[in-house]
Amino acid sequence: MNDPRTPDLAPTTDVAAYMQRVGEAARHASRIVARASTHSRNFALQRMADAIRRDADALLDANAQDVAAARSSGHDAAFVDRLTLTARSIDAMAQGLTEIVALPDPVGEMSDLAFRPSGIQVGMMRVPLGVIGIVYESRPNVTADAAGLCLKSGNATILRGGSEAIRSNRAIARCIREGLRDAGLPDDAVQLVDTTDRAAVGHLIADEAHVDVIVPRGGKSLIERVARGARVPVLKHLDGVCHVYIDEFANVEQAVIIADNAKTQRYSPCNTMETLLVHAKIADRALPPLAVIYAAKNVEMRGDERARALVPAMKAATEDDWYAEYLAPIIAIRVVDSLDAAIDHIARYGSAHTDAIVTENHTHAMRFVREVDSSSVIVNASTRFADGYEYGLGAEIGISTNKLHARGPVGLEGLTSRKWVVFGSGQIRT
Amino acid sequence: MNDPRTPDLAPTTDVAAYMQRVGEAARHASRIVARASTHSRNFALQRMADAIRRDADALLDANAQDVAAARSSGHDAAFVDRLTLTARSIDAMAQGLTEIVALPDPVGEMSDLAFRPSGIQVGMMRVPLGVIGIVYESRPNVTADAAGLCLKSGNATILRGGSEAIRSNRAIARCIREGLRDAGLPDDAVQLVDTTDRAAVGHLIADEAHVDVIVPRGGKSLIERVARGARVPVLKHLDGVCHVYIDEFANVEQAVIIADNAKTQRYSPCNTMETLLVHAKIADRALPPLAVIYAAKNVEMRGDERARALVPAMKAATEDDWYAEYLAPIIAIRVVDSLDAAIDHIARYGSAHTDAIVTENHTHAMRFVREVDSSSVIVNASTRFADGYEYGLGAEIGISTNKLHARGPVGLEGLTSRKWVVFGSGQIRT
Repeated sequence: MNDPRTPDLAPTTDVAAYMQRVGEAARHASRIVARASTHSRNFALQRMADAIRRDADALLDANAQDVAAARSSGHDAAFVDRLTLTARSIDAMAQGLTEIVALPDPVGEMSDLAFRPSGIQVGMMRVPLGVIGIVYESRPNVTADAAGLCLKSGNATILRGGSEAIRSNRAIARCIREGLRDAGLPDDAVQLVDTTDRAAVGHLIADEAHVDVIVPRGGKSLIERVARGARVPVLKHLDGVCHVYIDEFANVEQAVIIADNAKTQRYSPCNTMETLLVHAKIADRALPPLAVIYAAKNVEMRGDERARALVPAMKAATEDDWYAEYLAPIIAIRVVDSLDAAIDHIARYGSAHTDAIVTENHTHAMRFVREVDSSSVIVNASTRFADGYEYGLGAEIGISTNKLHARGPVGLEGLTSRKWVVFGSGQIRT
Repeated sequence: MNDPRTPDLAPTTDVAAYMQRVGEAARHASRIVARASTHSRNFALQRMADAIRRDADALLDANAQDVAAARSSGHDAAFVDRLTLTARSIDAMAQGLTEIVALPDPVGEMSDLAFRPSGIQVGMMRVPLGVIGIVYESRPNVTADAAGLCLKSGNATILRGGSEAIRSNRAIARCIREGLRDAGLPDDAVQLVDTTDRAAVGHLIADEAHVDVIVPRGGKSLIERVARGARVPVLKHLDGVCHVYIDEFANVEQAVIIADNAKTQRYSPCNTMETLLVHAKIADRALPPLAVIYAAKNVEMRGDERARALVPAMKAATEDDWYAEYLAPIIAIRVVDSLDAAIDHIARYGSAHTDAIVTENHTHAMRFVREVDSSSVIVNASTRFADGYEYGLGAEIGISTNKLHARGPVGLEGLTSRKWVVFGSGQIRT
């Protein structure tokens, strides 16, 4: 059952019973961190950062063993790259925790308190979700990032990282739990699932009694697997088929700059544009200069007939291209006849992630913003801005493509909920 | 497959294909109502109300057939009571729609727009969820109430009522769809699942492609069944094991009045108190007068040893009583030694629905509010206030015991979500 490469595993002969204990301990700890003061949660975060910096060498050693094992079992270079820690990335991890300290505490914030005709005063209080399960792959830095954000927002965390990173994750988790103890908080507020048994994930995502939300971090197949098997709600990120629509009334120069940036600033992020829509009346001015830029950057263009008539070097796009999330230097390009056609295309082929319009026409801008049902809708700026840091969240646990609870970049608020509070002075219902 | 008592069913030989068509039509209509003006949605609601008032006799006829069928198939009086429409309840249904017209439109509301250092302006816009599936039992008035709230919040609705109410629901749905058409909106914005085939519910709650949220309305077994089988998120209400805690520092007179009201004003609502917790230092002053009141109202008291020592007429409570949602004139009573003991009891046995403290001590009040993790936490007022109307929501689709998305009474806001909007002037990421 256990991975033979990690002989120092906790003795978990019964993974169901082990996960039950982990869940119960998390639920218990969650009540304590939920009421812990801002100061003690911040103090714990700072101590975690200190411990990570102090133990940098031990972290590098543990990580080197993970990397060696991953190499010897034939994982590819990209995988090993994600797995590898450096002195610099360890320092960034500690720095990340320190930055979380500086964020405002969302817990306990009261709002909208108003008196009702009955005499009671009614409002809402922001509260932690409770226990958050994080299921991730090979990046060990998620261990510290996720635990830090969950603690700041008053939640307990159960971390389930990739088995290839287990030595690194253990070393990081030791620092995190030391920080919790230093602050007088229960160390079970952050637990690492210390088994590589794959069945542990199944138990975690089904444990409605002890887990309030699952946040999967990783590739699409992980997320789909988690979402399929979960009984607990999943805060998930699926596809990022993002569009830029260059409207008839766009400033052409601005449109070219935005469409360039949205595609080429980085190819792999989820908020990178995959399909460019161009109004027929502006296509002859916008597409040729853009094509020069894309060609110079070796971006493969796949266009519909009208786009190819303007830029003959383009390949022909197929129906599949409109659905594609390339995450690569490839772009699909379509000429459309109206704002409505652009909105329809986005509704049909898009993934409701991030979509932008470039236009000087106010009515078109406001219609696009209202009618495009995506987690981020952008006017006259690059899709690449759809990001927790750019939006001012301070940090981001991920980007949600859910419609309920949290949409788009999710910061501390997305790890909380709001309950009703009522202040009375003896009122009863009649 | 079809219910032989309703021979006028739509010819649905293949329920999966039928539900697929219903889902597609709802998705299509949802895009149109999401962008419809406030005026046209309000106009539709008003026309629905007019049509219901005009067709009152036809509604009564259809309902009489449902009631006769329910009686002849042996349903009990309470069931028939829930199923039965009267001239007055039909008028109330129409009035309810008119009241929804008067509520502020939540759709498109923008908030928190602020400039970021990059120069983009970032904020949030409230948007409809999309398609809402309502699964309910025998109350035909849900058809109009739910459709009205969903339309006001810009959503399309798929209604799946109890098969015993299908003639009534059809008659109401005809009025609703007429109202939609009168306003130039697609009538498929509100669809009644016109089959009594039980498999239809299974298809509806699994249709992630076309349905954004399911709201089950009815008894606990319905809600559990829906929650268990759903792939779509479920906005659900489970148990209401509500507490009143009379603190050491309570105003005794006030405490008695609140504990009386919370239990006896009505026995069946979910926000009725089921367990009374009393601090040991005040129990001898609070319990005897309360016992007199409960006894006069024939409320059966089940207490722990210390409560029984003060009120010998009490029966002995068992462990099961602390978990019980009686929805009846029965109350469990426990004497506790501290605020912490009260909070611990609520965390262990409660259902995170609605809990109240009676105290004059500010620190105790604020600790209770912060530390009790329930959808409504109340100081010095009856638990019975946990209600959308009392909270000022204007109307309520239900009370949610979920932690994510919406907690407690859910009004129009709970049927919406917020997306990010970004206004730029040519910004790109560097």
